[in-house]
Amino acid sequence: MFQITFKFENGDDVIVHALQGENLLEVARKANVAIDAPCSGNASCGKCRVKLLKGELESEQTRHITDAEYAAGIRLACVSKIAGDVEIGVPDIASAYKSRMKVADLSSPEEIAIFEKTKNEIMESGIRMENDLEIVEVQMDSPSLDDTMPDNERLTRALEAVGGVEGVVLPHFVIKKLPDVLRDSQFHVKCVVKKNKHGYYVYDVRSAGEDVKAYGMAVDIGTTTVSAVLIDMADGTIAAKASAGNGQIRYGADVINRIIESTKPGGREKMQKAIVDDTLNPLAERMCRSAGIRPEQIYRVCVASNTTMNHLFVGVNADPLRCEPYIPAFFEMEGFKGSDLKLEVNPNARIIIAPNIGSYVGGDITSGTLASMIWNKPEFSVFIDLGTNGEIVFGNSDFMMSCACSAGPAFEGGDISCGMRATDGAIEACTIDPETMEPTYSVIGDEGQKPVGLCGSGLIDVISELFRCGIINAKGLFIREGKRIKRDEFGMGSYVLAFKEDAASVKDVEITEVDIDNFVRAKGAIFSGINTLLESLGFDVSVLEHVYVAGGIGSGINMKNAIRIGMLPDIPLEKYEYIGNSSLSGAYAILLSGEAEKKVHELGRNMTYMELSTHPGYMDAFVAACFIPHTDASLFPSVSQW
Amino acid sequence: MFQITFKFENGDDVIVHALQGENLLEVARKANVAIDAPCSGNASCGKCRVKLLKGELESEQTRHITDAEYAAGIRLACVSKIAGDVEIGVPDIASAYKSRMKVADLSSPEEIAIFEKTKNEIMESGIRMENDLEIVEVQMDSPSLDDTMPDNERLTRALEAVGGVEGVVLPHFVIKKLPDVLRDSQFHVKCVVKKNKHGYYVYDVRSAGEDVKAYGMAVDIGTTTVSAVLIDMADGTIAAKASAGNGQIRYGADVINRIIESTKPGGREKMQKAIVDDTLNPLAERMCRSAGIRPEQIYRVCVASNTTMNHLFVGVNADPLRCEPYIPAFFEMEGFKGSDLKLEVNPNARIIIAPNIGSYVGGDITSGTLASMIWNKPEFSVFIDLGTNGEIVFGNSDFMMSCACSAGPAFEGGDISCGMRATDGAIEACTIDPETMEPTYSVIGDEGQKPVGLCGSGLIDVISELFRCGIINAKGLFIREGKRIKRDEFGMGSYVLAFKEDAASVKDVEITEVDIDNFVRAKGAIFSGINTLLESLGFDVSVLEHVYVAGGIGSGINMKNAIRIGMLPDIPLEKYEYIGNSSLSGAYAILLSGEAEKKVHELGRNMTYMELSTHPGYMDAFVAACFIPHTDASLFPSVSQW
Repeated sequence: MFQITFKFENGDDVIVHALQGENLLEVARKANVAIDAPCSGNASCGKCRVKLLKGELESEQTRHITDAEYAAGIRLACVSKIAGDVEIGVPDIASAYKSRMKVADLSSPEEIAIFEKTKNEIMESGIRMENDLEIVEVQMDSPSLDDTMPDNERLTRALEAVGGVEGVVLPHFVIKKLPDVLRDSQFHVKCVVKKNKHGYYVYDVRSAGEDVKAYGMAVDIGTTTVSAVLIDMADGTIAAKASAGNGQIRYGADVINRIIESTKPGGREKMQKAIVDDTLNPLAERMCRSAGIRPEQIYRVCVASNTTMNHLFVGVNADPLRCEPYIPAFFEMEGFKGSDLKLEVNPNARIIIAPNIGSYVGGDITSGTLASMIWNKPEFSVFIDLGTNGEIVFGNSDFMMSCACSAGPAFEGGDISCGMRATDGAIEACTIDPETMEPTYSVIGDEGQKPVGLCGSGLIDVISELFRCGIINAKGLFIREGKRIKRDEFGMGSYVLAFKEDAASVKDVEITEVDIDNFVRAKGAIFSGINTLLESLGFDVSVLEHVYVAGGIGSGINMKNAIRIGMLPDIPLEKYEYIGNSSLSGAYAILLSGEAEKKVHELGRNMTYMELSTHPGYMDAFVAACFIPHTDASLFPSVSQW
Repeated sequence: MFQITFKFENGDDVIVHALQGENLLEVARKANVAIDAPCSGNASCGKCRVKLLKGELESEQTRHITDAEYAAGIRLACVSKIAGDVEIGVPDIASAYKSRMKVADLSSPEEIAIFEKTKNEIMESGIRMENDLEIVEVQMDSPSLDDTMPDNERLTRALEAVGGVEGVVLPHFVIKKLPDVLRDSQFHVKCVVKKNKHGYYVYDVRSAGEDVKAYGMAVDIGTTTVSAVLIDMADGTIAAKASAGNGQIRYGADVINRIIESTKPGGREKMQKAIVDDTLNPLAERMCRSAGIRPEQIYRVCVASNTTMNHLFVGVNADPLRCEPYIPAFFEMEGFKGSDLKLEVNPNARIIIAPNIGSYVGGDITSGTLASMIWNKPEFSVFIDLGTNGEIVFGNSDFMMSCACSAGPAFEGGDISCGMRATDGAIEACTIDPETMEPTYSVIGDEGQKPVGLCGSGLIDVISELFRCGIINAKGLFIREGKRIKRDEFGMGSYVLAFKEDAASVKDVEITEVDIDNFVRAKGAIFSGINTLLESLGFDVSVLEHVYVAGGIGSGINMKNAIRIGMLPDIPLEKYEYIGNSSLSGAYAILLSGEAEKKVHELGRNMTYMELSTHPGYMDAFVAACFIPHTDASLFPSVSQW
């Protein structure tokens, strides 16, 4: 056995032991050390770069690593084998993906604005923001030798009397604590109950002396990022908000690689553990700590996520999603409890899963559609979720149609050499001087934060600016030279945004021709998706009154630049609105309101799914859109005037 | 840290580590080494005898250990502290209590006769032996690109069509395996379902090619012994039968000591673990192995147990049972599932708990009353359960009354120096030659099994015979001398049934005056309980047409001897019947039949509980009964004629 020490730049060490010949990526995964491996260890993406600090690895160089880098100790984890004691530096680009949690500062109004807005807009549509959870206070007589009624009957009768109901269900969680709580409280308690036609279902019993509230948690399980809010179910007040990387990221950047990984022996359990134990439970625990409550006080959970994510979350075989005829285990799923999914919330917490409408249009989209309000407007709108992949919903109050674009993870920084999600260290906006080719950029994080990489909005800006300045051509190839333009041995160009001495990274923060090509394919998928969807209905983009852009691309998205590179249609800028994480704000509404929950199921059932990949004309439209801005420049008349 | 080696006579070793000064009994408990400690470590019972084989212990001698025994290495674990590396011999008397499992040989008709009898008798009363579990076979169309219905909808619609129901609940357990089972079976499956007014609740989905049955498990959780049967829910066929010691035994022999132990930090979890993880799960697993099925195929469980046992099983605070005003957490309890109680059966298996009617008359008695059939007879009967403690139910088809006697664990060998439960090595029957005072006894176990101790029925015989032969007087004191009569330094007598060289024990198998006194108190509690109950209603024993004796006292019980020592009333012998483990046979009936389940709740609600301890006259009756046979010999006219 050899000792393997993983050293993080933040000073953390993780020490594990491994056998001769073990694969370093596997060793890291077992040790819960997150190394980005979008291709899931096939040596094809070149993202699992680590630095050999001490000792030796048996490692191939591969095309992803230059001689100089190899000499400096850079290795790909997926092609490295253990050959002795080693110290491995895990670069920042990986630790940015590490399941690091970020708790929002609720004193900042913008953190909660989206939930207020969603709540108000949905209420304006006539939907009541109410649910069936209640707090019921009861005072019972203490038992005596003349009144020896058992505890459960005593509470049942008291609740029936106070609530005017017949029938009370006390689940095991409540029975287990009942004798203690009754005696500690002198038989004066508050119960968290659900009132339905059968009477009360009791989630919790607590001393009446406590400030008892019914809490709920809304979660957006993104392929890359998981975001959540803890709320007071009485009025929707946000009690805490947090986000973290999806713990599954170390098994692959996109849903396909995750599914493949999940089909390996023990893979399904590993995937479920990665999202539940490594991501959701710490997130819930951290939010509860911040709100001063215990996780068992979360009595309801609403999860919005794409179809693969909710299948892996539930622990069900997701492989049929990826193989013809692409059959999910479920669209709608009711009846799961916290304990079924090993969520560390109240064991009887009802788990609401926003409905899927297809294998590639999931609950994040139905939830986001709800939040976008496009279903409540007579005029036509399009709702675009730009996260890992991209989904589009077009329609109005009469009908809705959706499709999924195989855009890949580029909008969240996946498949991009210096790509990262919109978190600390990400360049989120950028301009370039046409003369000097020098960049000016803003970086997410505290004052003085050095750049680590580029998030989706930053990529849009950089590509747009490179094109505007004539540094790249319509094919995304570098056509100018200069201090910031590098060429590799094959002549492939790249543009350096920050040299490594100015960056919080072990290498230059740059964008390569391969990155641009990847991103152009992603934006091409979106643009051609929107157009194909509209054309199939006999429309064109001129019918659009609103375009709602949501998702992990980042709030920094510059719509003008997104149009300029041909990602979004060339319609008046004022029609565009970035609505943030609509999957989460939709989940918030579903959690808070029984009527909103009904509505999202209605939306899901009424939404038509269009399969783009088999749609005649889509492939041609896609190929035509893989230029900057497009092979048909007439589609972008405004661009030449800007 | 020192190394502590526990050596069992069967050759097993358990090696653990402990600190200087740690209590040996605690160390043993932590290591899951079962050492009998009825007094729960108070140095009062003297039962936690171990043998120091190597090394030293810091240990008091106490009154329970003679000089010779101390010199030979005998120690009480509860007063011994770790002082270095040691090897400890754990005697057979303890390993007899160890959670050793015994699987019944079903080819022996007597093993299943009791269940056949109970089933037939209950059916004769008009109760149907049917339940709501069914097997439904469905053949679905395989999905295609033109038929992309999700798996859960596909199964739901197929079940609705086949069963003519509306509404199907697929819990997480089923969803999780659904895509695999559907594809492995070419969409041809058998479902284990419960049919109710809401439609089907699906417990399991399995390939139609399998021999799918719905299994259930009935369990009697005795304070000392746990017995169970695995049955086919379709017709009640016994698929397996097994028993084991209650894993809680190492925390105390009786319910009071268990409750006290459960109130210590972590005690409740420890007690629940001892009964669930250490006893019920291995028992279920072993029965399933014997029947060739998996534990997840147990879809329903019925538990019959005394009030303390079902409180500790459920993991609820049992302390209020023992403190005035003696309030249980529940009498009736519905809605627990296998997963709530961490039972390794189907996670959604419904757990039926036979109802308690008081803190000291529990589900074992309501269940046993059901099996005794006394509720279906116009004439008066008494049902007596002689396990740990003794409970009595008197009545007929019009009314029933019950009481609990503080008899302690003597009937199952507790509080008796060589006492043990009715298992291998127990002397279960005995005669003594009045001249030579030599005993002739039968021992439970294979041919040639040497005696380890005495079980309840053996104790009755030995005391009866000692009295008949004039070896002890009516006070239980030894009044003859001889080779088999020993006297200790204070002159206290004992009778040796087997000298250690003829026994499978480290010491003589004997019965002491203290044992006789303990047993006489136990039998006095029963006799005075029966009489007090009858007298409170204005009756005497002459009204009794049937006396049904049940419980762990053992099938070897000699009614004549039980009358002779004044334990049971002197009425014609033909009125007595030993009905075996009625708690288990009742649980079997409740499990198999929805109507029997209703009936046991009706019996429980209609049964009046009489608190003996506060009943005027009981104490006098008890004291008068603490003689052999009684201070009033006229109550036992037959005895002088036998």
